[in-house]
Amino acid sequence: MTDIARTFQTAPAAVPRDNTAKYLDSALDSEGFACPDWLVPDLEDGTAPDMKAEALENVVDRLPEHADAFPGEIWPRVQWAYDDEGAREQGREEIRTLVEEVGEHIDGVVVPKVGRLADVKDAAGVVADAEREFGFADDAIGMAVIVETAAAKSDLREISLFGSNSRLDALVFGPVDYTAELGGRELDGERPEWGGLLEDLSNEASANDLVAIGGPYDRLFTERAGVTFYNGDGYADHVEREARVGLDGSWSLYPKQTIQANRIHMPTSDELARDVRKIEAFQEAKSGGTGAVTVEGQMVDEATFKNFVNTVETVRTIDERHPDQTGEAYEDELLERALTVDTTWE
Amino acid sequence: MTDIARTFQTAPAAVPRDNTAKYLDSALDSEGFACPDWLVPDLEDGTAPDMKAEALENVVDRLPEHADAFPGEIWPRVQWAYDDEGAREQGREEIRTLVEEVGEHIDGVVVPKVGRLADVKDAAGVVADAEREFGFADDAIGMAVIVETAAAKSDLREISLFGSNSRLDALVFGPVDYTAELGGRELDGERPEWGGLLEDLSNEASANDLVAIGGPYDRLFTERAGVTFYNGDGYADHVEREARVGLDGSWSLYPKQTIQANRIHMPTSDELARDVRKIEAFQEAKSGGTGAVTVEGQMVDEATFKNFVNTVETVRTIDERHPDQTGEAYEDELLERALTVDTTWE
Amino acid sequence: MTDIARTFQTAPAAVPRDNTAKYLDSALDSEGFACPDWLVPDLEDGTAPDMKAEALENVVDRLPEHADAFPGEIWPRVQWAYDDEGAREQGREEIRTLVEEVGEHIDGVVVPKVGRLADVKDAAGVVADAEREFGFADDAIGMAVIVETAAAKSDLREISLFGSNSRLDALVFGPVDYTAELGGRELDGERPEWGGLLEDLSNEASANDLVAIGGPYDRLFTERAGVTFYNGDGYADHVEREARVGLDGSWSLYPKQTIQANRIHMPTSDELARDVRKIEAFQEAKSGGTGAVTVEGQMVDEATFKNFVNTVETVRTIDERHPDQTGEAYEDELLERALTVDTTWE
Repeated sequence: MTDIARTFQTAPAAVPRDNTAKYLDSALDSEGFACPDWLVPDLEDGTAPDMKAEALENVVDRLPEHADAFPGEIWPRVQWAYDDEGAREQGREEIRTLVEEVGEHIDGVVVPKVGRLADVKDAAGVVADAEREFGFADDAIGMAVIVETAAAKSDLREISLFGSNSRLDALVFGPVDYTAELGGRELDGERPEWGGLLEDLSNEASANDLVAIGGPYDRLFTERAGVTFYNGDGYADHVEREARVGLDGSWSLYPKQTIQANRIHMPTSDELARDVRKIEAFQEAKSGGTGAVTVEGQMVDEATFKNFVNTVETVRTIDERHPDQTGEAYEDELLERALTVDTTWE
Repeated sequence: MTDIARTFQTAPAAVPRDNTAKYLDSALDSEGFACPDWLVPDLEDGTAPDMKAEALENVVDRLPEHADAFPGEIWPRVQWAYDDEGAREQGREEIRTLVEEVGEHIDGVVVPKVGRLADVKDAAGVVADAEREFGFADDAIGMAVIVETAAAKSDLREISLFGSNSRLDALVFGPVDYTAELGGRELDGERPEWGGLLEDLSNEASANDLVAIGGPYDRLFTERAGVTFYNGDGYADHVEREARVGLDGSWSLYPKQTIQANRIHMPTSDELARDVRKIEAFQEAKSGGTGAVTVEGQMVDEATFKNFVNTVETVRTIDERHPDQTGEAYEDELLERALTVDTTWE
Repeated sequence: MTDIARTFQTAPAAVPRDNTAKYLDSALDSEGFACPDWLVPDLEDGTAPDMKAEALENVVDRLPEHADAFPGEIWPRVQWAYDDEGAREQGREEIRTLVEEVGEHIDGVVVPKVGRLADVKDAAGVVADAEREFGFADDAIGMAVIVETAAAKSDLREISLFGSNSRLDALVFGPVDYTAELGGRELDGERPEWGGLLEDLSNEASANDLVAIGGPYDRLFTERAGVTFYNGDGYADHVEREARVGLDGSWSLYPKQTIQANRIHMPTSDELARDVRKIEAFQEAKSGGTGAVTVEGQMVDEATFKNFVNTVETVRTIDERHPDQTGEAYEDELLERALTVDTTWE
């Protein structure tokens, strides 16, 4: 099961270049903070209609050689739409081919534009059939769905409950399709933020042990005084908003976005220092015997304490997988304290 | 079926003037941008208790002569309340009278203060009985409900699902009653914004092909330095917030509000120019063959593209019904491009 | 049944001082605006693990002598957690002891960290068993639950419906545990505000005649230029946000917080003056006979009117229980008008 999903980076699986797998190749070779926790070779909207076949071939061709060395998980996005039987038929074929040809190299498939619960179950059934046909264990291939239709949002609680005991592992938000379906508009440069939906997504994911991932941010570049440059502020604000409400990860369209989202979804050095310090101070004060210690003007009870421990545990998980990232992000002395501090409450 | 509902203008059906139908008459005669998509002759809170009978007479008297020439739809609001049998009894009588006397001149009835699903079904049953009794086809008379009670919000998903295959066509928000029922307060001049409710209303309407309309804005006038004037900024901000999350229309209490809401719920000239330009640029770039074209720093995939097309299609619908409005809002050359650009994705 | 719950003040039931009941004693002796509507002797997170037994003894010892003189309600918080059988076992014992020893002195028990509906029903069953065993009437002992898990939020509608005809009287928000469970983070000094959850809590409480109470604010003190002082601005903003969306009361950790929350959850002098004036103006204008009177630029219909009346009725309720508070908060002449103005609509 997935234990980190800070970044969900889609890469078009075929583009009209000499090397049509250019973006897929570079994502598979990414290193350090530019390496996504989830790489999503995109057979859906990121790939032009006339290149779908080549896109699938590229995935089938590249994964056997590169998947094992890739430190993250690999989740191809197939075609699907609750209101388009043609898209679903293509999706069924893509899932079959992926499971048959590279089933041992993928962690799951990402299914977009799902509708109500019945549609999600249909998609899960397609994966189950392919597992059986090609000799994989039950639930060997996971499934993530993109919540980007009014129907899926309406059934979010039921879909998530289904996820609590099925191959459904993750909920991903798709704001562009969602906004289009609801008829939302950008006015005065402001788009709807769908704050209620993000809360619900985070809640239902937590209630059912699913991963929750935010939506893409497509204002990749910005312009000022004649110069166009990477819109690092816009994306960071976007990711921070998602992290605040408890989404596990953010969608990335671009290596620089992956670097930022990987960074933001891990504790900052200040956060880690603060929470390690508070745990340490609490452990000292605890000897006094009260359950309501005040540390730096803040009451610390078991619930507050759990927040501090969450920070430390996230760092420990990342350190296990990517010691280069924790080594770069934190001072040695702080990291050492984080790895060794006593996080027990009683 | 309703295809535009930018404005839902209530007009008291009787007021204590020499001509008690003064507001109804002027609304039926409204022209240009002051003409609402939905005119709502109000038999409920807008009409004083001692004038209810005269209000109903005014509606029965005026519609036969004026309804055909009125370019919008006509939806009288009757009395009703989930927690007041007296109000429901009056509502039943009003629905019977309206269907019997002017059934061919109205598009539906607006039912306020509905409670849980069972109450909405009761109201729908009253309309069905009247249709049968007076020889109308099944579902000839539509129904809109005002979501303004905690019970209706609690059952919003179920009520909306009922709407997917019933005469229920529209969900309208009623913030004043809603705030009163929840005990919400205005503090430091700020009222609750009910952003979560608006998201849910827009979502459930979209999931079930219903129209979603925002709530009234009663700060009609504002005062500064001794002068009282129309609060055009306050209302425009209110309508923009509703448009952003995908509500189809806004409630109007006043002709100037109707002008503004009609304008805001149609694309601005800049929006239209931008989206037409992006569609045109995309159609050119598409020949290059990739599904992920970058236009003006923004990735354009099928989902993004659908947003641009929504803009163009709204303009085409309004142009068909109100060529005077599109003629006034857009330059001829831009309108021509909007009416002719190729909006197909593949 | 509870008719005011402006303040929900938790007090650790045992602390490591000479008098381990120090905080409980001072809360039971509180006076004026520092007296909470609900006093919550805390056996859960506010009391250290090694003092739980003494905490329960303190409650059993103090209530018989002080409860009758205390003007508010008394609701001890017991231990409980949907995912921890040990905590539930302790909670069952605590509920039994409380009902047996001081059942006639408490209004109910507060159950934290409940999960889905089944867990809430289990807790209610424990109270029912204790009532029977110790000879109390059915539903003599109320129950409040703290909504602070993803499971409880997911089932909020079902739990609240259960509350409409059971001993469940109140929903309290627990943001610290909730944020920890969802993995939410504080970034740039900003925490998630859970605005969607607060709207839902207020709605479901209103739909089922339950009391809704906000979460604790633990930034008790703030520091500036070398001086640490009570963070009265932070807490007041917090409480105002809760009052705006219709929560009935706020959580207090400290007597100064109780003073502020009691004040904010009653109408300000300006609000009361404004709403009394609007009711008076409306009653005069009503003689003109129209249902849509404009008072100070605002349309007044029955729904708007109900908002004004809510203000006056809250003041009347507080005046009945705490004439000292209304006497301190309002000028005599205004209070007199509030107590006598005609609040009937027709």
